[in-house]
Amino acid sequence: MKNITILGSTGSIGQQTLNIIENNSDLYKVDILTTHSNITLLEEQCKKFKPNAVLIADDDARSKFIKKTKYKGDISNSNALPIITRAATTDIVVSALVGIAGLLPTITAIESGKTILLANKEVLVVAGKYVMNKVRKYKTKIIPIDSEHSAIYQCLIGEKKKNINKIILTASGGPFFKLKKEELEKVQLSDALNHPTWNMGKKVTIDSATMMNKGFEVIEAKWLFGIDTNKIDVVIHPQSIIHSMVEFIDGSVKAQLSYPDMRFPISFALATGNRTVNSYEKIDFTKFNRLDFSDVPKNKFQCLDLAYSCVNKGGNACAILNAANEIVVAAFIKNKIKFTEIPIYITNALNKIEYIDSPTIEKLLETDIKTRKYVSNLMYNNNVK
Amino acid sequence: MKNITILGSTGSIGQQTLNIIENNSDLYKVDILTTHSNITLLEEQCKKFKPNAVLIADDDARSKFIKKTKYKGDISNSNALPIITRAATTDIVVSALVGIAGLLPTITAIESGKTILLANKEVLVVAGKYVMNKVRKYKTKIIPIDSEHSAIYQCLIGEKKKNINKIILTASGGPFFKLKKEELEKVQLSDALNHPTWNMGKKVTIDSATMMNKGFEVIEAKWLFGIDTNKIDVVIHPQSIIHSMVEFIDGSVKAQLSYPDMRFPISFALATGNRTVNSYEKIDFTKFNRLDFSDVPKNKFQCLDLAYSCVNKGGNACAILNAANEIVVAAFIKNKIKFTEIPIYITNALNKIEYIDSPTIEKLLETDIKTRKYVSNLMYNNNVK
Repeated sequence: MKNITILGSTGSIGQQTLNIIENNSDLYKVDILTTHSNITLLEEQCKKFKPNAVLIADDDARSKFIKKTKYKGDISNSNALPIITRAATTDIVVSALVGIAGLLPTITAIESGKTILLANKEVLVVAGKYVMNKVRKYKTKIIPIDSEHSAIYQCLIGEKKKNINKIILTASGGPFFKLKKEELEKVQLSDALNHPTWNMGKKVTIDSATMMNKGFEVIEAKWLFGIDTNKIDVVIHPQSIIHSMVEFIDGSVKAQLSYPDMRFPISFALATGNRTVNSYEKIDFTKFNRLDFSDVPKNKFQCLDLAYSCVNKGGNACAILNAANEIVVAAFIKNKIKFTEIPIYITNALNKIEYIDSPTIEKLLETDIKTRKYVSNLMYNNNVK
Repeated sequence: MKNITILGSTGSIGQQTLNIIENNSDLYKVDILTTHSNITLLEEQCKKFKPNAVLIADDDARSKFIKKTKYKGDISNSNALPIITRAATTDIVVSALVGIAGLLPTITAIESGKTILLANKEVLVVAGKYVMNKVRKYKTKIIPIDSEHSAIYQCLIGEKKKNINKIILTASGGPFFKLKKEELEKVQLSDALNHPTWNMGKKVTIDSATMMNKGFEVIEAKWLFGIDTNKIDVVIHPQSIIHSMVEFIDGSVKAQLSYPDMRFPISFALATGNRTVNSYEKIDFTKFNRLDFSDVPKNKFQCLDLAYSCVNKGGNACAILNAANEIVVAAFIKNKIKFTEIPIYITNALNKIEYIDSPTIEKLLETDIKTRKYVSNLMYNNNVK
């Protein structure tokens, strides 16, 4: 029986994780749940899963929850967030917060030797080098929940790292893959939110349309698997059936496939590299009949190029990239800027925010705040491009 | 440094194996080579690889070889064939003879604890149950050279057998996959020899056109991986890029891919489950652009159905199937019978040859001889259909 703490239990990954725990109650038990402010759903989750403790980050929501709830366990506030994952009762921490708030609690979980199931991308995008050093030092492991990294992880089971020739990240290409570069100028928010295969939140859907999401995955793959970015390729595969591949030194390629459903990688991660039975729809090769591939058009997805250049630069560059992207995409979602302006604003931030070669975790968090302020100022005062 | 004995060094698999040994002379050394009668090529191989011993099965060829050769090592005759693989100097035996002649030497190799690289299909098709019992008893292993089984083997690295839900063998479908059943009546020998993706010998090319080859692979997969045939599916994949797949209990599918080139699985097998660098053309996902899949048309490929029913029946049924198929296909290659008559003659043999429930290895060999005689009589005296 594994005790599971979920950072972000009311989010999409959190809810799906709880669904799997519910279906495997002989294997998994909930330890701690956290939410930002969705106390209605948290109340339901408390009733069903009887966590040992909960955390509500938003103070107003927490006050309301305390007044109404029938839940008798410990109710923490946001001050506890950076350390909640130290709990001795926890075996596995599902890091599924959205944004940089997930970084510190994930680090304390690693320092406490917990197994990390990682959905929060900031952990590795912003602080990959630092975090992986901690993983080695505290002899624990990160199992990715992202479908692409789960695919790579599965292809590498039983294989030696020295035998990896190349990691091939597949990308659906998003809704704009077939547009010409000049046509991108005219795309609307509604077009960008229309993802061909995955049903996701707005921010990540836009990141998928710009391919920044794939860029973040390149950065994560570098850290997670200890592979240079010149050995990480991206290939367009519109059906999102092959979730990623590994080419070995002998030319043999291994791929992992499933229908696009996050419950597959979450199930795999929860089983900590093992496998459990489920009832999700399996691939029927007699029903779907083709898988397509093509290369990523050159010079069209500048956000992907930016990600490669930032991770190769190192230091705090990826922290700038991530923070700038978040503010810029939020502005696009509010119809403040054009789709093609996204990489322009990000590039501006990368040029203007001070580069730090070997940042501490505090400096990375400082970079994040600085970049957000700088880009918000650009966005909403429209000073510079 | 591994010492390699190759049964059938002048055949296609034997030659490709030697090519890989030559390119990895720091890892592999030739121990013993055998040929049926191709003494010209054997002479070259002796010069280049300096084997400790050779075996020439054909007596005339052996006499000629002895008169002319500069080779100074031991030269055995066919009497030594069943025991040659016991040599203490050998670590790995490549079982690449064509036909049932490969069965006994492979068994003695297993009994001597050698690692077997298996290309000879009769070993598992005719005597799978017996052979795998020997593998367990003598604590050795069989690494498949066949591209499909190599793919499955690679997908299973580091995975638990209990987590396998299904093995999915891919099949090109051969040249007749798109024909209607009634059109099969009219196909000519030249059509059947025109395989879409793999360049192989005549017999196996015809077996590919009838899909008996895939049927044999189902039988081999059952024994090699210890999986019931109701968990072995066949799916048509015309490009022969995905060589086979494994679906696990959690719905995740793993696939192994490469261009269709036997040097990939041979390289993998020689490295005994590890991997070595080579210069064969790697898959470029930006160049080829699609992989297709479809189900095997019902009631069209009767040879595939026969293979499933024989392996499920057990006993000596697969020995009858294999022997009958060999004689019938030889007759088709000589234009003695029509393509659609192949399964008819095989079915006749399966109905007429005595079924033995728990055959010894001697009884299996006896079944082989009996079936060949019976079917030859049918073919060339055209008595019965």
